[in-house]
Amino acid sequence: MGAFKFRGAYNAMSQLTDEQKKCGVITHSSGNHAQAVALVGRLLGIQATVVMPNNAPAVKRTATEQYGATVVDYDPAETTREKISEDILKQHDYTLVPPYDHIDIVAGQGTAALELMDKVKTVDMLLVPCGGGGLLSGSAIAARGMNPACQIIGVEPELADDAAKSFHTGKLHTVKNPPTIADGTRTPSLGKVTFPLVREYVDDMITVSEKAIIDAVKFLFYRMKLVVEPSGALGVAALLSGAVKPGTQVGIIISGGNVDGNTMKQILNS
Amino acid sequence: MGAFKFRGAYNAMSQLTDEQKKCGVITHSSGNHAQAVALVGRLLGIQATVVMPNNAPAVKRTATEQYGATVVDYDPAETTREKISEDILKQHDYTLVPPYDHIDIVAGQGTAALELMDKVKTVDMLLVPCGGGGLLSGSAIAARGMNPACQIIGVEPELADDAAKSFHTGKLHTVKNPPTIADGTRTPSLGKVTFPLVREYVDDMITVSEKAIIDAVKFLFYRMKLVVEPSGALGVAALLSGAVKPGTQVGIIISGGNVDGNTMKQILNS
Repeated sequence: MGAFKFRGAYNAMSQLTDEQKKCGVITHSSGNHAQAVALVGRLLGIQATVVMPNNAPAVKRTATEQYGATVVDYDPAETTREKISEDILKQHDYTLVPPYDHIDIVAGQGTAALELMDKVKTVDMLLVPCGGGGLLSGSAIAARGMNPACQIIGVEPELADDAAKSFHTGKLHTVKNPPTIADGTRTPSLGKVTFPLVREYVDDMITVSEKAIIDAVKFLFYRMKLVVEPSGALGVAALLSGAVKPGTQVGIIISGGNVDGNTMKQILNS
Repeated sequence: MGAFKFRGAYNAMSQLTDEQKKCGVITHSSGNHAQAVALVGRLLGIQATVVMPNNAPAVKRTATEQYGATVVDYDPAETTREKISEDILKQHDYTLVPPYDHIDIVAGQGTAALELMDKVKTVDMLLVPCGGGGLLSGSAIAARGMNPACQIIGVEPELADDAAKSFHTGKLHTVKNPPTIADGTRTPSLGKVTFPLVREYVDDMITVSEKAIIDAVKFLFYRMKLVVEPSGALGVAALLSGAVKPGTQVGIIISGGNVDGNTMKQILNS
């Protein structure tokens, strides 16, 4: 479904018991994890319910429904997705498949870096986008295992720099509905599972401007011929904007590619 | 530079004599071959002049200039690019690097299929876009050499079906400024070199509608996360629209990706 979220959702949902699979699953997600849970649900025959903010990109909502999930809307200005999920969970025997804060999700998402490092063993710097920290912590564990000398750097939008602040201070910071174009990183904070992992396995956290993100999406479109959504382009943004001093062989996790035609149009025109 | 044309231009221009390299080259192209000659010129230190119709996509013209070539405009409604090129050739010692009708160009462009068949030896049907027939005839020769049983099919827009007509009748047909969105196939006809090769090595020629081309570009954008220009999506259009009955393992040459933001916007909105 065009993003690393599939890796985590499949790893988690394929390990559910038969009883859990029969009862169905629920998740909350701004988009890519929603699609991942919906698609894995279809592949494994598990009914999926997805709690989604009403400002999620249309392309992600449509795909989630097309994969067969039930979408429950909420207004992020009025309530939180965790609250809605809890209310629904009280009424049903669903299993919660969290978007990042679970060790099976972290392990699955980390296979992105595992594959990269398996192909190019000499990567000595790895740039990884950071939202809730599932991809980042999983990739960091995988990369560290493949090459202990590899420097692992998480990249966040300046407007959603909760993980960078948390990393540098050792205290969990949160942001609320950050207005970044990188909608995949609008998560409020790192999680109970991912925060300690990021602190232990990641070497540095850096931030990039909205302009750097937009420039990276344009570069990927016009030069690499890749459709990459803003969140997926954070690593490229860090490298091209000079926010990071590159290593000898830089690896970048670029994922996902679920961007509305209208959003891409705005980006290409800006 | 985002298209197979580089393969042909590099193969041809790297074989020029030192004297020819010193004098410079000229070509006529609606876009991708122009960029290819410009970029190869920069890489090999050869001055390049490009005759380009004034309705060529802006993204291709800009890139050609940025690679360091001199662009000479003409109005395709009033004259032909061959005529303009001849006039300039009379005044300079340039070597003409034709966009498709030369055996070195055909050989270079055919390496696209060579690489594909080298990676996946069991391809038993190959779909290849056809403009002037350089990519198609080169790919057909390469594919035939790699797997004699492979069926090679050229794909053209319905609105620019000169090669299909030529193939089926054995007589060279031409079209003039066909109004297809696939600007890379607005070539008037197959060439003296490519026509006999297409007749000998290609198994069939088929055409696809403008709608099928647009749907293919959208599919590649939204599902494959690839930026592909309309001409590059012809093979995918043939498969998805049902214009061809697929073989067991279908290979498709998808190239290039030089599409204006505005054109992509129109395609995604249609």
